[in-house]
Amino acid sequence: MENGNVRRLAELAVGVGANVQQGQIVTVTCEPGKEYLTRAVAEAAYQAGARFVDVQWYDPWVKRARIAYAPEDSLEFVPSWYGERMLALGDQRAARIAFSGPAAPGVLDGLDAVRAGRDRLPSVKESSQVLGERTTNWTIVPCPSAPWAGLVHPDLEPAAALERLWEQIAHVCRLDEPDPVAAWTARREQLEGAAARLTERSFDALHYQGPGTDLEVGLLPGHRWIAGGLETVDGIAHMANLPTEEVFTSPDPERTSGTVAASKPLVLLDGTVVRDLVMRFEAGRVVSLTSSTAQETLRTIIESDEGAARLGEAALVDDGGRIGALDTVFYDTLLDENAASHLAIGVGFPFAVPGEAAGRVNESEIHIDFMIGSAELDVTGVTSAGERVPVLVGGQWQI
Amino acid sequence: MENGNVRRLAELAVGVGANVQQGQIVTVTCEPGKEYLTRAVAEAAYQAGARFVDVQWYDPWVKRARIAYAPEDSLEFVPSWYGERMLALGDQRAARIAFSGPAAPGVLDGLDAVRAGRDRLPSVKESSQVLGERTTNWTIVPCPSAPWAGLVHPDLEPAAALERLWEQIAHVCRLDEPDPVAAWTARREQLEGAAARLTERSFDALHYQGPGTDLEVGLLPGHRWIAGGLETVDGIAHMANLPTEEVFTSPDPERTSGTVAASKPLVLLDGTVVRDLVMRFEAGRVVSLTSSTAQETLRTIIESDEGAARLGEAALVDDGGRIGALDTVFYDTLLDENAASHLAIGVGFPFAVPGEAAGRVNESEIHIDFMIGSAELDVTGVTSAGERVPVLVGGQWQI
Repeated sequence: MENGNVRRLAELAVGVGANVQQGQIVTVTCEPGKEYLTRAVAEAAYQAGARFVDVQWYDPWVKRARIAYAPEDSLEFVPSWYGERMLALGDQRAARIAFSGPAAPGVLDGLDAVRAGRDRLPSVKESSQVLGERTTNWTIVPCPSAPWAGLVHPDLEPAAALERLWEQIAHVCRLDEPDPVAAWTARREQLEGAAARLTERSFDALHYQGPGTDLEVGLLPGHRWIAGGLETVDGIAHMANLPTEEVFTSPDPERTSGTVAASKPLVLLDGTVVRDLVMRFEAGRVVSLTSSTAQETLRTIIESDEGAARLGEAALVDDGGRIGALDTVFYDTLLDENAASHLAIGVGFPFAVPGEAAGRVNESEIHIDFMIGSAELDVTGVTSAGERVPVLVGGQWQI
Repeated sequence: MENGNVRRLAELAVGVGANVQQGQIVTVTCEPGKEYLTRAVAEAAYQAGARFVDVQWYDPWVKRARIAYAPEDSLEFVPSWYGERMLALGDQRAARIAFSGPAAPGVLDGLDAVRAGRDRLPSVKESSQVLGERTTNWTIVPCPSAPWAGLVHPDLEPAAALERLWEQIAHVCRLDEPDPVAAWTARREQLEGAAARLTERSFDALHYQGPGTDLEVGLLPGHRWIAGGLETVDGIAHMANLPTEEVFTSPDPERTSGTVAASKPLVLLDGTVVRDLVMRFEAGRVVSLTSSTAQETLRTIIESDEGAARLGEAALVDDGGRIGALDTVFYDTLLDENAASHLAIGVGFPFAVPGEAAGRVNESEIHIDFMIGSAELDVTGVTSAGERVPVLVGGQWQI
């Protein structure tokens, strides 16, 4: 890796991403192989006046030991201080920085899939509450590592694979621009323009049509589309994903129907890869689910609570971003979801539906994105009067 | 490293050390380079029926970023959830396993020593309370790593240094015995015999005489000497240190006088090495302190609260252990203190002084051991009638 890029990526996460304020506590998630970026972020955060940098470590190999050997009745257990810490981060208005990129691909290979699905860490259910209350300014940025590079570029030698992944990450994060911050500001304005036009249309539903997909997703009254930046309850602007190329909202969890086929593999938080996912919805709920890998794991997850089998997010991605053009499967939701339009099962974002219908946004302890976009996917808006309006065709905005 | 030894060391920590019970939460501290033993301990703990293994990560390089760049008024700050977690470990009767061995020698080199002394993490003040309440069964075992091996054996090639350190650790942990558990049981009985005889004598003071040392340490009425094993409030037997070769008590914090010279370097929790330490005590308190390295750091620490400059522990080590015979400075308190008699400034152990005088045991947020023992150190017991009784001469018990 090139040291200048490490520093620039850390400064992007602290500055434009989380937008760390003087005196804030900053929490950074770290997995094996991501220590170098954690340390660079700590330096950048303290230089920005952070009061404390709290590193949260998660080791997928310790999870492997748990799935392999822990007593059957203990697999859903989470120590009390995990959730209490998350709530304290909100109460104390902390900044949160996380790194994407699979740390240990295949780490759970050969283990019982149902047992694996019952351990949901490192996710904790309290994070949905903190997210909904908008009390923390947070961001997720990609962190290149050797295992990840080997997964994305299996045909290259390890050193070349890591170099290639770094080139791609630097490019999609716009670290190769003279002024990455200005570049992100311009892209953000484009996306916010599209989001504003979609919000103004106030569609009653979206209709997705493409290979293997014929799906109608109902939208809630008063929903709005969000792009690029978020703002905390105290008015701190932050960019939750870097890179970000999407506009998104939370749909009506009771009005999705039809069939949808994922256009790319999706990678669960623990590194499990789900391929060839196809789901059929009736009255908002998944009624059948197939995939060629990890099918039982995902079936266990969507049965974990009432909202786990309903949609919490609908996001549209045009072809103006830098990720789709690389035509690379990154096995990383942050990048892959920003390459393509996507949906998510599980918890939604009440702040995307201001007003009376906010209470109807989906609730769940999970949130799992899956990619459905491609050049062949057409998205059509349906008004409450039944009018059909092209929204995205061939990756180009029509509105 | 040899895999069988990794497994045996993990099983020793889980079995004889912490004595993990079915259904317990087990917390494991981990630093860079100690992941392999953390994972082996997680496997052994789950196989022993642990409910959850909670890994607590600490990265000395993130500390370096803090000392280098954090705002001046933030250096003593500790997030609320650090102490709350520690208290919860006690309330929920968890097992605790920690690894000794410097993870990043010299990591703070070149930084401001006073700033470094103000950040006491990874220690938290609540750990003294949990220790005193005896609510957790815990152990510390050494964890070999490449940086540590380079420090202990600088003249060897890195691979040979690590191999040599592993041989030494396996030897002093008695992993090379056919039955390490039986070997530890026998040694523990020897030490507990010496402790019982010392307790029975009920000395009023100990007098230490050796090169650079002429020190009298007052003892409290009703004190007892403790060896090898501890027991939690719920009756779980555990061995807090593996290896352990010491018998110890908590002295009277107001009746130490004279001069003491450390016989080995001491290594602070953050890896700082203190060499050639000499302290003079009057009425129990350090009145002068010199050292050839880290002098200002240690002076800052002993001024941090009222008890930080008073003794909390006096420990005697005979020459029957395996560590002293290696004649190696390990730069690691766990090993070096078990090679030689030692004292500790800071918090003491109320359970070592049952009865009325328990409230007089020293209180502090710190606890720092320093080694004073050698073949030249004589320890004499002084009775309340003024009688002088040889206790340790040339490393041999006299009682």
